[in-house]
Amino acid sequence: MRRSERIVRMTRLLMNHPGAPLSLTEMALAFDAAKSSLSEDLAIIREVMEQDGEGTLHTQTGAGGGVVYTVDIAPQRATEFATEVRERLGQADRILPGGYLYMTDLLDEPEVLRTVGRMIASAFTALVPDVVLTVETKGIGLAVMAAQYLNCPFVVARRDHKWTEGTSVSTNYVSGSDRRVQTMSLARRSLPEGARVLLVDDFMKAGGTLKGMTALCAEFRATVVGRAVFMATSEPEEKLVSEYVSLFTLAKVDEVHHAVEIKTGNYFSSGGRFA
Amino acid sequence: MRRSERIVRMTRLLMNHPGAPLSLTEMALAFDAAKSSLSEDLAIIREVMEQDGEGTLHTQTGAGGGVVYTVDIAPQRATEFATEVRERLGQADRILPGGYLYMTDLLDEPEVLRTVGRMIASAFTALVPDVVLTVETKGIGLAVMAAQYLNCPFVVARRDHKWTEGTSVSTNYVSGSDRRVQTMSLARRSLPEGARVLLVDDFMKAGGTLKGMTALCAEFRATVVGRAVFMATSEPEEKLVSEYVSLFTLAKVDEVHHAVEIKTGNYFSSGGRFA
Repeated sequence: MRRSERIVRMTRLLMNHPGAPLSLTEMALAFDAAKSSLSEDLAIIREVMEQDGEGTLHTQTGAGGGVVYTVDIAPQRATEFATEVRERLGQADRILPGGYLYMTDLLDEPEVLRTVGRMIASAFTALVPDVVLTVETKGIGLAVMAAQYLNCPFVVARRDHKWTEGTSVSTNYVSGSDRRVQTMSLARRSLPEGARVLLVDDFMKAGGTLKGMTALCAEFRATVVGRAVFMATSEPEEKLVSEYVSLFTLAKVDEVHHAVEIKTGNYFSSGGRFA
Repeated sequence: MRRSERIVRMTRLLMNHPGAPLSLTEMALAFDAAKSSLSEDLAIIREVMEQDGEGTLHTQTGAGGGVVYTVDIAPQRATEFATEVRERLGQADRILPGGYLYMTDLLDEPEVLRTVGRMIASAFTALVPDVVLTVETKGIGLAVMAAQYLNCPFVVARRDHKWTEGTSVSTNYVSGSDRRVQTMSLARRSLPEGARVLLVDDFMKAGGTLKGMTALCAEFRATVVGRAVFMATSEPEEKLVSEYVSLFTLAKVDEVHHAVEIKTGNYFSSGGRFA
């Protein structure tokens, strides 16, 4: 196999399995190459990934030696994305009754999902979450993509109790914005005891949903290692959860004057790292 | 830039944007390379991808010349996956009351999602869907991943009507298995008129849900180009939709004798291509 071909295969293998430890011995067999040659290739790939801000390779030495590709996002790309989102979501025709903003179309797009997934994954990878938890429905795409880049399962809490899931645990929570009591459920089998959980959602007002998810995790004796939302409203200033990361802040939705103001969230002010 | 570095960058660029046309002119600028060098690199990448059954590159000639990476899955990988799924889902402790099978954990895993996403995307790429539609909740992960590989948005029909979505269209449908009348809704803005829609769901018994999704598409004057489900039950034999692709068939769930039988679906018998 020519070196150029091997580099295509190794790059592909790493990108197809972000966050997963890949065995050097297995690579050597699959590519019929000496480990020393693979190490040179990996050094090239690492250099390129780091130079471009697209991630890095962690080498694990020893008998079961291997390599893990962890994704990152170049600050320039994150900034470009922020500009694009603020422009697109800042349009007045997105205002919905009740101070909501129509943003489903954006969060349905493949490139937006990849970018947000990378942003969330790179922010929390150092905290080694082993599951991403969201609540149905609109945050699921983000949870799926963050989990892809973190190489962990995503789990969805349901707003109803579906019996096709087997035994489940339910919790009541108060939606902070309209003060309604709501229920969310999670199948007993879906979250292992002691799991390190990253909570992901698309939108947060007072934080009642995230607080409910946190309570649900406690029922499973799971640890919440972080909370990430695509957009948080600036009001109410005091949220029901103390720590969260928001990519964007909805600073103003003026239904009367048709004005929307979106700012970047604390993700950007803290350099995109939470560990 | 050394050739090996450029090959890492090009492989990464293509894999980060499956299904998306990438401009040769922009690549030449970004990589500071002659188009002839890029073409040589692309030839290497194409050869490797095709050899490994991981996809191919389509070159678009002319002034706006570019290249598109379309994903595929090696038949051997698909077969290995089928064996793994049949083993894992064939466990008796997965039987749930009512002839259902607990499979959420499987469909939450990153590698399973990638594999199923690739299988569905490669099967339907020739039909050029421009949106993947599912209905909440359990098929969303599959829809997200299929849409990623097809480079198109995914859209979720809701089982309730959420007013935060703006104007929406609802349809009633009869669940084929328990004969209950149910509702699904789709935001008016979420599906453009004339869209080519690929329907994706996790589980199908009689096909009522897929029939409902088909009816919903008709309301939007959208064309259903295909229907893909992860698992279909063998009973009832006659389904409410005439054409669908299933990856697996649930042939038997015996609650009394704790036996499950899973077969491969028509995806495998038709060579994984539907065009």
